Amino acid sequence: MTISATAREPGKSETVIDRLHSVLEKDMGQVETLLKARAKSPVDIIPDLSEYIVSAGGKRLRPMITLAAAKAVGSSKHATHALAAAVEFIHTATLLHDDVVDESDLRRGRPAAKSVWGNSASILVGDFLFARAFTLMVETESLEILDILSNASSVIAEGEVRQLAAQGRLDLPTEDYLAIIEAKTAALFEAASRAGALSGGSPEHADALAAYGKNLGLAFQIVDDVLDYGGTTSVIGKVVGDDFREGKITLPVIIARRRGKAEDHAFWARALDVSTQEESDLARAIHLIRATGAAEATIAEADAYVGLAKSALSSLPDSEWKTLLGELADFCVQRVH
Amino acid sequence: MTISATAREPGKSETVIDRLHSVLEKDMGQVETLLKARAKSPVDIIPDLSEYIVSAGGKRLRPMITLAAAKAVGSSKHATHALAAAVEFIHTATLLHDDVVDESDLRRGRPAAKSVWGNSASILVGDFLFARAFTLMVETESLEILDILSNASSVIAEGEVRQLAAQGRLDLPTEDYLAIIEAKTAALFEAASRAGALSGGSPEHADALAAYGKNLGLAFQIVDDVLDYGGTTSVIGKVVGDDFREGKITLPVIIARRRGKAEDHAFWARALDVSTQEESDLARAIHLIRATGAAEATIAEADAYVGLAKSALSSLPDSEWKTLLGELADFCVQRVH
Repeated sequence: MTISATAREPGKSETVIDRLHSVLEKDMGQVETLLKARAKSPVDIIPDLSEYIVSAGGKRLRPMITLAAAKAVGSSKHATHALAAAVEFIHTATLLHDDVVDESDLRRGRPAAKSVWGNSASILVGDFLFARAFTLMVETESLEILDILSNASSVIAEGEVRQLAAQGRLDLPTEDYLAIIEAKTAALFEAASRAGALSGGSPEHADALAAYGKNLGLAFQIVDDVLDYGGTTSVIGKVVGDDFREGKITLPVIIARRRGKAEDHAFWARALDVSTQEESDLARAIHLIRATGAAEATIAEADAYVGLAKSALSSLPDSEWKTLLGELADFCVQRVH
Repeated sequence: MTISATAREPGKSETVIDRLHSVLEKDMGQVETLLKARAKSPVDIIPDLSEYIVSAGGKRLRPMITLAAAKAVGSSKHATHALAAAVEFIHTATLLHDDVVDESDLRRGRPAAKSVWGNSASILVGDFLFARAFTLMVETESLEILDILSNASSVIAEGEVRQLAAQGRLDLPTEDYLAIIEAKTAALFEAASRAGALSGGSPEHADALAAYGKNLGLAFQIVDDVLDYGGTTSVIGKVVGDDFREGKITLPVIIARRRGKAEDHAFWARALDVSTQEESDLARAIHLIRATGAAEATIAEADAYVGLAKSALSSLPDSEWKTLLGELADFCVQRVH
């Protein structure tokens, strides 16, 4: 197998994501065809809304991990493509419901589906895509894969409920934060990698790839949470501030608050209560997250999970896919620097 | 098999529902155990909210039909119990999401879950129960059953979206109304009956039982829709008025409006627009539905589906289960008189 370089935008260096898209082009073509075909419905709102969110510039990270996991230990077949599409539909369904739950008006820099079609349509189209994900999974003809993904789906919902219950809990222990992101984010990465290995025909590598996926998912979410505050510098990173505006308790906040002075405690308490938050609070939050070294400490935590993800790969046979999965783990944290 | 009478409340005649509960007591015990066990979660809100809605006095009609379908053509086993519990979880998940979509504050006469725990928790616990339904279905070890129920689930969501899009469409054709209720209600009855037959070990009777379930579901929803306006008389029937307050276009309204005078058209247009509806409008709506004979005509439509449901049973071997399923179809409409 030869991994060819894709055409690069001038001045932009090629990332592992670009390379994955390039080497998986044919497989991802099949997955995209499935995503489009299975979002079809005689009820117009459904394909319209689905396409809006499915094509909203997502990186297709989860289906690519599914495919790469299968190829690292075997080969991809229709079952793998159906599984990869199912994983993306589950992810999309949770995004649609998250936007309603979080009352987010924006998603990836453009109006959230719920801002265009309303909360009700977002809830129901999420349900539709979730159901279609299971229809796709039936095509893998594997009850084990169905079991893995249905379990992951209930764990995701549990994670979201825990996150909801944690809102405003400024004293949220780091362990609780980690349990929340393990459920709401890492569970799907873990299930996608495990099921990918099974669909590739190598159950003996399923545990290793599951561990890879779980730790990758943890690192990915931790980095996302620090990027929401601009990472270690706002010069390169773009500050999003979504989590802050929603009063979410994430790792950078937990560490900054823990290391802060008494008056900082009062600040965090007021600023993370959405009813008392002020316009200028985000700037101060970013300042505190940097000044206390919380941004660096958060990234170090993500780095640890990247290390675990990479070492989980060690038992796999050497291949360019294994190399790419390792580089993908590194990229998770590199994107913050 | 002997069908024994259950203890009756004094002065209340025993219905076929009571008899089904009585003859299915042992099986339903297993189903109830599964419902309780599989709603468990370390995240307290989930079992609390699940139990609130799962135990909210539902008649367990869908799991009982699943069991009776299996027994009418074979026998019930663990797969049947798991399937019956999965069907109830899917139904419960749709109720939780419906309450958010319809902005209903009440469900079966007590506060809707969303009024107690909020919209977000209702959405997420709905997702949780939907995922757990699929985990339960994996236990049937039948990809065909998983396919049937995942397809039904996407059809239900399509029906809900169509219903949403039909809001305020006073000229909704009867055929569109029927397509909506076939998707949002009858699809689950149909899937439960078909999958019940498969789990009972008789694929040769699956089509007949699917036709039974579909027509029963249509009759059931049509009767529900006329009962929302008190049926043919408000003396016995209790007027709910939920559909009216939500501006839903249902069969009694479609017929009453079609048969009404010009000034009635203006009334329906104003009254079914939730922003211009007045307190006294429900009484006038009920009056028009009776005066135009729309209530009777709606019940006649339901009666036709009861007939189709019963004739679908004709190819099944004679048994007390077949008799009960036939009586259940009759009961669907009898409850309105």
